[in-house]
Amino acid sequence: MPDYGKIAQQVMMRCDELGKISQSDENLDRRYLTPEHQQANQLVGEWMSQAGMKTWQDEAGNLWGRLESKTPNAPRFLVGSHLDTVPNGGKYDGMLGVLAPISLINEFNEQSIELPFHFDLVGFGDEEGTRFRSTLLGSRALTGEWPAEWAEVEDADGISLKNALKTFGSDFDKIPNAAISTDDLIGYLELHIEQGPVLEDENLPVGVVSAIAGAKRFDLSVKGMAGHAGTVPMPLRQDALCAVSEMILVVEKVAQEHGIVATVGQINNRPNGVNVISGNTQFSLDIRSEFDGKRDAGLAQIMAEIQVIADRRNVILESKQTHSAPSVHCDSALQGVLRNAIEHAGHKVLTLPSGAGHDAMAIADICPVAMLFMRCDKGISHNPAEAITTPDVAVALEVLDHAIKNLG
Amino acid sequence: MPDYGKIAQQVMMRCDELGKISQSDENLDRRYLTPEHQQANQLVGEWMSQAGMKTWQDEAGNLWGRLESKTPNAPRFLVGSHLDTVPNGGKYDGMLGVLAPISLINEFNEQSIELPFHFDLVGFGDEEGTRFRSTLLGSRALTGEWPAEWAEVEDADGISLKNALKTFGSDFDKIPNAAISTDDLIGYLELHIEQGPVLEDENLPVGVVSAIAGAKRFDLSVKGMAGHAGTVPMPLRQDALCAVSEMILVVEKVAQEHGIVATVGQINNRPNGVNVISGNTQFSLDIRSEFDGKRDAGLAQIMAEIQVIADRRNVILESKQTHSAPSVHCDSALQGVLRNAIEHAGHKVLTLPSGAGHDAMAIADICPVAMLFMRCDKGISHNPAEAITTPDVAVALEVLDHAIKNLG
Repeated sequence: MPDYGKIAQQVMMRCDELGKISQSDENLDRRYLTPEHQQANQLVGEWMSQAGMKTWQDEAGNLWGRLESKTPNAPRFLVGSHLDTVPNGGKYDGMLGVLAPISLINEFNEQSIELPFHFDLVGFGDEEGTRFRSTLLGSRALTGEWPAEWAEVEDADGISLKNALKTFGSDFDKIPNAAISTDDLIGYLELHIEQGPVLEDENLPVGVVSAIAGAKRFDLSVKGMAGHAGTVPMPLRQDALCAVSEMILVVEKVAQEHGIVATVGQINNRPNGVNVISGNTQFSLDIRSEFDGKRDAGLAQIMAEIQVIADRRNVILESKQTHSAPSVHCDSALQGVLRNAIEHAGHKVLTLPSGAGHDAMAIADICPVAMLFMRCDKGISHNPAEAITTPDVAVALEVLDHAIKNLG
Repeated sequence: MPDYGKIAQQVMMRCDELGKISQSDENLDRRYLTPEHQQANQLVGEWMSQAGMKTWQDEAGNLWGRLESKTPNAPRFLVGSHLDTVPNGGKYDGMLGVLAPISLINEFNEQSIELPFHFDLVGFGDEEGTRFRSTLLGSRALTGEWPAEWAEVEDADGISLKNALKTFGSDFDKIPNAAISTDDLIGYLELHIEQGPVLEDENLPVGVVSAIAGAKRFDLSVKGMAGHAGTVPMPLRQDALCAVSEMILVVEKVAQEHGIVATVGQINNRPNGVNVISGNTQFSLDIRSEFDGKRDAGLAQIMAEIQVIADRRNVILESKQTHSAPSVHCDSALQGVLRNAIEHAGHKVLTLPSGAGHDAMAIADICPVAMLFMRCDKGISHNPAEAITTPDVAVALEVLDHAIKNLG
């Protein structure tokens, strides 16, 4: 049996090293098509080569490494995650899912393990969407989903995606070349930190993702009547903030009842003076579930109940949908392979949904996908405090090893 | 009987004219010790003179007019309000309580009405406290409450109160001369717009103020745990905004139960992202009652109940008191005089507390005070939309006329 603990140490050291490539001096910030993206591809590409992989970069700036199969006309199995980060990000979100497989492939190579498929590892150039405000650019290039109008989408400095690609040494018009054929594609597997507290709460190192939740988002606002905090008696008030407070508690209650997640993360109150009754309060709603139907049932109940509150309180409620994405279900056969591998490694199997979006969401358009979640400290991510442990990486490596060998 | 309707028309016209004196081209903004303060005193002083009053300005920049009594050793009765405004203010808040009495005194003078006391009308230079962030500067000069350290208090441009007084033609060191003797002081009466919706709701032109509410203010904050809106299941959350929402509803409920007013007017949430669970929410509490004991009982209940919420939700609640003022009760004999006058004018008598502060709060330190409230449109004040009607002014004039003649 491979020494997973030792391999895990290599993974952790490489996460540290890769985490130093940043466009900011103060924290980790590595965005799509920047010189730091190029540098990261260079470094990770070298590690891929050292592990015995054939490497290349596609037109979208995704880095590829292949452990070639000797089987004639072998199909491909994809493993991957992303190499970009959010501003002030952590060094495991994305990177872990590229670096852990490299170290495992190195082991396969050294042990001359023969696989009946090409093991294609991909490091996506953009998942976070920080630079061009559109997420999953890397994986969407693979699935051929880049519309022509994206050429002119601009970053905060006014640089278009087309020009950024050119500077990077690529060509927007050749992006369709990055799309991959589905003919010989078996599936896709992604290892990622959970970015939530469930595994930690259950005291488990890894878990199998059942589905990636589909989110809907709304921008809501309540218009009441501003007034003097001293002179308007309680029964004569149309306090927008009080109405919104009641609505926020409805969101929380309905989410609990329906077993979904729903969040009011943003609130902006006007005039927001200590001695002025609130006249207008804007708030956000983000609602997610692995089951779109369950999410929409909860959503309908929330919308109905908050309208009742608005009517009773004589305030005006307006809402506007700002985002909608369907949930993506992970392939049951691939989930089964992961479950067996976790049991084989001697751990309890927990299946959990992913509330956050991942590259697997895009790849699900072209093949069966699966995800293995790894515990992260307090569920924190998108933060320099993001942390994982070497023993957990060792478990993830053991599970991946067993799963990949049993894909056939 | 005087033609109150005609007198009211003069009052309304003068409110319009005085409302044009502003340090801003865009809206009404007239602050303490500015050239516009000087101009306002000049104009109002002329109207006082025309009404047969002897006029002077005290060291604090308050404008005085006296309708002299022929009675030997006559005592003084004060009537007044303020001539300053908030930025973007209305033209009745304060001014009405100076201009309406001038027009009434003009009538007294023309009719050669003899009063057994000097009718001393005062237009305070500062009530709003906008320039030096300390309210009631004008009336506090009368009561001798200016501490020495106020000399160095600065406005937004770094001009000290001492220098502002000098520029105005006055002298900080002579401010004690503005204090008035209580030996011959009978009382103080102030006419003011309600700045609230109660009279309008009751369909009444005027009302008698029972007391000026004492306010306490708090700055509260709840610390929970920020997290990803998609990945943290509802039962594992410590959502600061949800906790605060529940607290805001407690504030509202307790105020209703106790018959007081309590307001959360300000809320600031962090990180305030649509897809991030709230980690920290700061909010304000303003709580008022005409009865300090009632206010404090409500406050104690609020504080106890919100602590229970914090404990149950596993979030940290912190609170800091930022303001405390006792309530001021209006003199019952003077209230009786006003009630009789309202009945005499043929209107239902409503007694109501003032939730807002007024010059009468300061003057209550040196003599019995009373206030007559006048209906204002939708209860709006501190706003260019501030509005009153000529018929209501006529009623206020009739009530003042009857009250003043019956003070003896």
